[in-house]
Amino acid sequence: MNTVGLVAFALVGATKAIREEFDVFGIAVVGLVTAFAGGATRDVLVDRVPLALRSFGEIGFGVLGVALAVGLNVAFDSADEHPIALLSDAVGLAAFATAGAIVATNVGLSGFGVVAIATINAVGGGAFADVLLDRSPFILFDDFYASCAVLGGTCYWLVTTFAGTPGAAAAVCAAVTVGSRAAAVTYGWSLPTAQTLDRRARG
Amino acid sequence: MNTVGLVAFALVGATKAIREEFDVFGIAVVGLVTAFAGGATRDVLVDRVPLALRSFGEIGFGVLGVALAVGLNVAFDSADEHPIALLSDAVGLAAFATAGAIVATNVGLSGFGVVAIATINAVGGGAFADVLLDRSPFILFDDFYASCAVLGGTCYWLVTTFAGTPGAAAAVCAAVTVGSRAAAVTYGWSLPTAQTLDRRARG
Amino acid sequence: MNTVGLVAFALVGATKAIREEFDVFGIAVVGLVTAFAGGATRDVLVDRVPLALRSFGEIGFGVLGVALAVGLNVAFDSADEHPIALLSDAVGLAAFATAGAIVATNVGLSGFGVVAIATINAVGGGAFADVLLDRSPFILFDDFYASCAVLGGTCYWLVTTFAGTPGAAAAVCAAVTVGSRAAAVTYGWSLPTAQTLDRRARG
Repeated sequence: MNTVGLVAFALVGATKAIREEFDVFGIAVVGLVTAFAGGATRDVLVDRVPLALRSFGEIGFGVLGVALAVGLNVAFDSADEHPIALLSDAVGLAAFATAGAIVATNVGLSGFGVVAIATINAVGGGAFADVLLDRSPFILFDDFYASCAVLGGTCYWLVTTFAGTPGAAAAVCAAVTVGSRAAAVTYGWSLPTAQTLDRRARG
Repeated sequence: MNTVGLVAFALVGATKAIREEFDVFGIAVVGLVTAFAGGATRDVLVDRVPLALRSFGEIGFGVLGVALAVGLNVAFDSADEHPIALLSDAVGLAAFATAGAIVATNVGLSGFGVVAIATINAVGGGAFADVLLDRSPFILFDDFYASCAVLGGTCYWLVTTFAGTPGAAAAVCAAVTVGSRAAAVTYGWSLPTAQTLDRRARG
Repeated sequence: MNTVGLVAFALVGATKAIREEFDVFGIAVVGLVTAFAGGATRDVLVDRVPLALRSFGEIGFGVLGVALAVGLNVAFDSADEHPIALLSDAVGLAAFATAGAIVATNVGLSGFGVVAIATINAVGGGAFADVLLDRSPFILFDDFYASCAVLGGTCYWLVTTFAGTPGAAAAVCAAVTVGSRAAAVTYGWSLPTAQTLDRRARG
């Protein structure tokens, strides 16, 4: 799952950079940041050296995603909106949220810490990439995307706290994240703004 | 003071996100980033796991600030410019600058490190929030705001270096920060730009 | 070389902030971020407290660069495009890429980690400054700049892995970085975008 996520995230990030006509260095940076910056931020926050800088293997999947984005750019107008890309992206979201929740629980963070790290691990790379592209992170105003990681991370914390095994917690977290993301894409979910809430409150 | 600051900073940040019509997830993120990212950056720079991820208590005050911002949005056009909000914000600025100076001194940083960490602790969250809102941090070109934390941090360093007790240093730092901020709001202080200095030099 | 780099980077960053009419606090922050944020990010990623916060000496060179930028602003329209500034900047790029490669090798990072940290050390400060100026980092779409650090870092890793002495690796890294940068400025090198590659592939 993690591997699928790395390739999918790098492809999505690199495709955004291609649209902005960044050069190949910029395309590679935005792709790799999308795939790895969430995990690197997690590692920095729990006070350890990012895994991606210590191993050679993981980076290969990121580079594959970047290369796919450049290659597919010729064939598809929006490679990152293809159903296979959307599905891979949802799998990556679930894998990264689960990895974040596991690391945060292992270092003894609070319930808030577990949910925060799961969410940062899952969506931090994409948010960082949006900042490099000089825009607000889309997760802050659009779609129902980061919320899936919040739900997954919350379930992980609930299961480990009240029901026990880390294995079960990881399975529930991954299933809730990918399931809610699939539902969000299928039914076009989005969260309300304060303006929407205001209008509803006024009837 | 720290509690007042967390609520005030979260309220100010969340109000900015409401103006940009972010969804409720985005409002919560920008509010919590404003309240906690300065302290988290401080902790990462001095090589420890951010306090906000380890305890449950602190986050509650941030969430309260976000909830207040959404609630007050109906009643006030600019909840973050209300005198009570401005005063609470100044108190938070002083509390965070002092907390930063104390941590930096305890880990043995240089005088520059103490002033830098005091300033980052006090204004880093707001600057990070501005980046998420896709704008330059307002502290870099507007108002006399970060400079109050610089003054407070400098006083903390001077007192601990030349006069002694950490308690006295903390009191002086907090008083100088909140006092200079109150004066800046009252008298409309701002710093010159290079262009202003240039015109003055040319007479 | 490191000293020349700190002054040159601070001058370049501060000059950008002056053009945006930031106030003197903003000018100082953008200048110091350009000079020190790359090294600070390196230190945070390898899990140690940033050197710039622990010593007083280094900051002095950054402050000198900021002061030069404000002073030269009167005399020159584009102090950061003067040949001396361009040369000093290339020297700084080489010094910072080499420092990053040495630190990354010493803490046992992978080959990718060495190249990534060399590049982040060399261009991370400028990229961070561009984000503060509310623009995409120029290294992602323009010029042949970060690529010089990538080349230098790659050579460092190759020499230490296959040929031996760290001293030789450092010399080769610095020479390759500054040499490729000088060539890039002289001959106007730039990297292709995906669009360019696409047109070439289609003949």
